Amino acid sequence: MTIKISIDCMGGDHGPSVTIPAAVSFASHEPGAELILVGLEDVIRAELKKLNASSHARLSIVNATEVVAMDDPVEVALRRKKNSSMRVAVNLVKEGKADACVSAGNTGALMAVSRYVLKTIPGVDRPAICFPMPNQTETPTYMLDLGANVDCEPQHLHQFALMGSALVSALEDKAKPTVGLLNIGEEDIKGNEVVKQTAVLLRADHEKGVINFYGNVEGNDIFQGTTDVVVCDGFVGNVVLKASEGLGRFLKTVFKNEFKSNPVNILGAFIAQGALKAISQRMNPSRYNGASFLGLRGLVFKSHGGEDAYGYEWAIKRAYDAASHDLLARISKTIAELMPQQEAVPAAPVPGDVTELTHQKTA
Amino acid sequence: MTIKISIDCMGGDHGPSVTIPAAVSFASHEPGAELILVGLEDVIRAELKKLNASSHARLSIVNATEVVAMDDPVEVALRRKKNSSMRVAVNLVKEGKADACVSAGNTGALMAVSRYVLKTIPGVDRPAICFPMPNQTETPTYMLDLGANVDCEPQHLHQFALMGSALVSALEDKAKPTVGLLNIGEEDIKGNEVVKQTAVLLRADHEKGVINFYGNVEGNDIFQGTTDVVVCDGFVGNVVLKASEGLGRFLKTVFKNEFKSNPVNILGAFIAQGALKAISQRMNPSRYNGASFLGLRGLVFKSHGGEDAYGYEWAIKRAYDAASHDLLARISKTIAELMPQQEAVPAAPVPGDVTELTHQKTA
Repeated sequence: MTIKISIDCMGGDHGPSVTIPAAVSFASHEPGAELILVGLEDVIRAELKKLNASSHARLSIVNATEVVAMDDPVEVALRRKKNSSMRVAVNLVKEGKADACVSAGNTGALMAVSRYVLKTIPGVDRPAICFPMPNQTETPTYMLDLGANVDCEPQHLHQFALMGSALVSALEDKAKPTVGLLNIGEEDIKGNEVVKQTAVLLRADHEKGVINFYGNVEGNDIFQGTTDVVVCDGFVGNVVLKASEGLGRFLKTVFKNEFKSNPVNILGAFIAQGALKAISQRMNPSRYNGASFLGLRGLVFKSHGGEDAYGYEWAIKRAYDAASHDLLARISKTIAELMPQQEAVPAAPVPGDVTELTHQKTA
Repeated sequence: MTIKISIDCMGGDHGPSVTIPAAVSFASHEPGAELILVGLEDVIRAELKKLNASSHARLSIVNATEVVAMDDPVEVALRRKKNSSMRVAVNLVKEGKADACVSAGNTGALMAVSRYVLKTIPGVDRPAICFPMPNQTETPTYMLDLGANVDCEPQHLHQFALMGSALVSALEDKAKPTVGLLNIGEEDIKGNEVVKQTAVLLRADHEKGVINFYGNVEGNDIFQGTTDVVVCDGFVGNVVLKASEGLGRFLKTVFKNEFKSNPVNILGAFIAQGALKAISQRMNPSRYNGASFLGLRGLVFKSHGGEDAYGYEWAIKRAYDAASHDLLARISKTIAELMPQQEAVPAAPVPGDVTELTHQKTA
């Protein structure tokens, strides 16, 4: 089976100089992948030529004459740039010509465009952004929402839990992923009203056997890997994600300064360079690149805007894995089984309601 | 001027074996401090004897026959153990016999007891927990609230900002500390309704010249040290604090494992041990020990429950500095100038409304 992925080649801080090398590399390594490069045709052709990949059999080009800038307001991306590489790449998913889309563009614009073009799955009120966080175990902690929804009701967090569970079962091949509800204590009485009511919904699902609800988890559990999925509202999730990036950057500065502080330390660092490289690789945020937009009638993956080709390729890989494991059908099935059926309302995107996911890079 | 501090000697995971050595050490180094050791008299005397400090001129003992256990429900601490070391230590502040109190006991119980005994400052609806976070600059980022208030209205965050500003101006000797409002983007349109309305209140204060409002800050700004104070609700603050502890612990594990992974790395680590020690010291959470309970008619400082004597001494030092810089009067003055005057309602503490601040230790 061939998996087709549309690539918004113009998105991100670096555009084609990052997205196209990543696409070429991924297509070369993954014979089951067919990539559709969307953007300014001349620019894409020139980049492919540089890489000696002009006639790659599993790379095709779709021209798109406009580009959504990283600082374009959501409204501009949505209403004025209808032939942007971002919009066209998402359209390809809508039209069934691609199984998933990858973009490193402006998060707010990408969510608004995706939601407008693809609509939500029946039973899902709001799409969520899900991101894999590194932890002490072998597989990451999938955390959602990370910024698409700042004011959530219990039913929204409930839907996030179901979608996150379906995502992990698809991507990590786990039958019953554990789901934790982010709170400020383990006990049921802890937390705000929204979280307490969400716990009631999740416990009911757990008793029906449709979700593996672990219970409340706390901030430290994210990096301990206590559960496969951690559910929270987009405000909390976004703050935690950025705080973690900030702490990582701060620690890196402290380390660099100390290891360069005198010749003895420089020598020690030189001798232990194997350890330092291994640490750097393990903690490399590029390995965790690729946030999923869940709850849409199509798969959309967001790469970090400042990512390099290595990191962008990870986002393509996540999109590829999700599509080849039929993530969309799994989420739809999970939601359909659990939620009171209703036709999805073609909700108008809320401008300003989506924040930039990761505006700075840790590494 | 002598500053008197009451010490809840029985509080914390280790009780007198940590609190008393810390008190003895602090009193020996700080001639302006007089410490009142509160708890089971026999136990305190025995501990002092071990340390050859039985007749220290600036250490006195106040007997208290009960002990609040770390897992005692708030109600038990508040209504059943009226002669606990915690309660008596706070009473001493109320009675003017101590200028501040330090406890490593259960956070929820300590907040409930403090609020019940001391009451809030006129104009303050709810006390908040404030904690200094390490960052890239010389002085920490003071963040509040960290768990006392999970559902906040704009006026609460507004009061936290004023109290945090007064705290930093007292502790760090800064005339106009910068105050940031934790959000998911820098732009005014970002965030939930509570945060947006809080920003309006803070901008008005800024224009009056009574607060130095920087604007919105994001998670990464905490560790960058963008502002002196970061204001958020207790849910977000508690999650961020614990997530940071968790990430720190995770990174420490990764480092330890890699530096021990083979003889070459062990040698490198041995040679660069100066750097590793300096890093460990800089990042030692004990140095940041001592959360302030702000908004009460008395100074209360909370030590981490699992802290050692070195860390506990830092909490005593924070309490001492706050009292000697007249923090209480400064906060009252700031609030009185800015808030519509009203008599403080002797609010009953809300059971379950306060979470354990730091239930695990990073180092």
